[in-house]
Amino acid sequence: MTRDELFSIKIKQPDEETYLRTKARWDAIAKPLDGLGDFEELICRIAAIQGSVTPGLTKKTLLIMCADNGIVREGVSQTGQQVTYDVVSLMGERKSSVGILTKNYPLSIVAYDVGIASNVTPEGVVDRKVRPGTADFLQEPAMQPSECLAAIKAGIDAVADQKKQHTDIIATGEMGIGNTTTSTALLCAITGADPAEYTGKGSGLTDEGLLKKTQVIREGLRLHLGSKAGSALMTSEEVFSALCCLGGLDIAALSGVFIGCAMQGIPVVIDGLISAVAALCAERLVPGCHDFYIASHMGKEKGMERVFAELNLHPVISANLALGEGTGAVMIFPLLDMALSLYESGTKFAATDIGQYERFQK
Amino acid sequence: MTRDELFSIKIKQPDEETYLRTKARWDAIAKPLDGLGDFEELICRIAAIQGSVTPGLTKKTLLIMCADNGIVREGVSQTGQQVTYDVVSLMGERKSSVGILTKNYPLSIVAYDVGIASNVTPEGVVDRKVRPGTADFLQEPAMQPSECLAAIKAGIDAVADQKKQHTDIIATGEMGIGNTTTSTALLCAITGADPAEYTGKGSGLTDEGLLKKTQVIREGLRLHLGSKAGSALMTSEEVFSALCCLGGLDIAALSGVFIGCAMQGIPVVIDGLISAVAALCAERLVPGCHDFYIASHMGKEKGMERVFAELNLHPVISANLALGEGTGAVMIFPLLDMALSLYESGTKFAATDIGQYERFQK
Repeated sequence: MTRDELFSIKIKQPDEETYLRTKARWDAIAKPLDGLGDFEELICRIAAIQGSVTPGLTKKTLLIMCADNGIVREGVSQTGQQVTYDVVSLMGERKSSVGILTKNYPLSIVAYDVGIASNVTPEGVVDRKVRPGTADFLQEPAMQPSECLAAIKAGIDAVADQKKQHTDIIATGEMGIGNTTTSTALLCAITGADPAEYTGKGSGLTDEGLLKKTQVIREGLRLHLGSKAGSALMTSEEVFSALCCLGGLDIAALSGVFIGCAMQGIPVVIDGLISAVAALCAERLVPGCHDFYIASHMGKEKGMERVFAELNLHPVISANLALGEGTGAVMIFPLLDMALSLYESGTKFAATDIGQYERFQK
Repeated sequence: MTRDELFSIKIKQPDEETYLRTKARWDAIAKPLDGLGDFEELICRIAAIQGSVTPGLTKKTLLIMCADNGIVREGVSQTGQQVTYDVVSLMGERKSSVGILTKNYPLSIVAYDVGIASNVTPEGVVDRKVRPGTADFLQEPAMQPSECLAAIKAGIDAVADQKKQHTDIIATGEMGIGNTTTSTALLCAITGADPAEYTGKGSGLTDEGLLKKTQVIREGLRLHLGSKAGSALMTSEEVFSALCCLGGLDIAALSGVFIGCAMQGIPVVIDGLISAVAALCAERLVPGCHDFYIASHMGKEKGMERVFAELNLHPVISANLALGEGTGAVMIFPLLDMALSLYESGTKFAATDIGQYERFQK
């Protein structure tokens, strides 16, 4: 895929009429209007994306993009880079946190190595390694444009594979030590926000470590954006360049997953900060993707609030999660199952003696 | 049960040591410290309540308290009183919203008639009717102290029954047209808050209807609290009196469920506004109950924020729910299942090459 090919992708919007017909079906169920709140809207949006008033949520897949980040050399993380490989190895056996979390829940989990700093890809993990970890972005651009495109393409291809397997909905996840640094840097680059406002402690830092991380991000922005640092980026080209310079291969690949879902008409669930920033990148690279997004949770990293505000999304879970791997994203699935159950089988007013509620106003 | 017997109930606090041992087990799992956020704390609290570092969540029960409210005569609701009976009849067949929502989820649902305005109790519903609906609180106290005590006792007994059946966790729900009016009135009575701040549209009102509802609540407070209206109530006696004058039999019975769970050492999940106000009443009637509470969701009714602030609770779902029947409360169950799965079976750092994360500070 070339940069021009990426920028020429066109997204077909979800079907507005299906949205409205789905909402009308909700209103016919014997319960207060909008009683299931945001879940009614989510089911309507999924229906519109899938183009059917009887949306499917049977086959669910979590795609986890894994890669290492050269920036860890600057001391922005409590743990070393080796942890990425070790955790992804567990992932391949479904023994990492998200695998155990969903042990009793029907979910396919597919992990991709798009850039782990190792010669080999852990067993049970799909090998789409672009390079064994990015460069330290305080020294040089994290990756070359061709590498960034290869990672995005890996994400797009992963969704195409899922489409062939008739997957109804996709959740996103990641693993890569150092990726709260890369994603916060990208968030600040894209929005023009101050790193001091959004840099968090990731998987655990001292106050001193947090200051260091903030400085590293600020320095990275200065180095790669120059006079544009502190202003919002306006064009797809600028966002692509920022992704190459500051981003991780995991973020690029996740952007590809979001773009792929928009291309294929599959609803896609955002997880935590890294996933959210990838969703923001995808929307800025290929406008129209955001219509296919579902926000799952508001986590511990403050940057998430900013991304959701930019994308006008409202997560339904708020639990200070900070685990990654897609753990927050998959938690929305049983809630959507419950909502869909009521939507599909709820007793209709027409089948009772109860008069339908009247809609006065929002 | 007499009033004195109610006020002499003593609650044994959850076991702090079990809490700390549970947290230590979380920290040994190969994931960032506190990575599962509020869910780690919830599992710790459930462990402390159950007095075991291997808490159980196998048997879950939803207790739904149903009753009618005389205040609907003042025009505070879009629908008529008959809807309570009709919906509870569906409940008895597991065809109401919460029954369908949890069709594919293992959950016992037990609905109680503690005061539906009918001569008979719907089939499949437990008959503990105290009286067929309360009085209009603008005319006289909603119920007599003996009736309020009988409703509270019905809740306490319902939990004792569940204890015999080895129920691990209880969710609360209600059905009763007019009960956002009664619960908002009680919330304002107990906290001294202004009804204008917390009165919501319930299951649907025009702006004019909302004004009317606010005035009805204000008038009720003036009538029954006199000069105490606008100040927080200080004693158990005052709260009991407010519950008799303004409350519903559903709220009184739910208060009994919260008290019963604290007595029996069973974690109890708060649902929406009505359930939350009942939880607040229970804590003010029998201090110490709040340690057994789990907040599930922040719904559409604004009063919930105030109750959670009073009780220092943080709901993990935020989705503008406004359905009742315990629909929000049961939604936390699959999330707790997932959290418990990771807690029970998560790969330990000790079983990997990964070094355990260090805790620097909260």
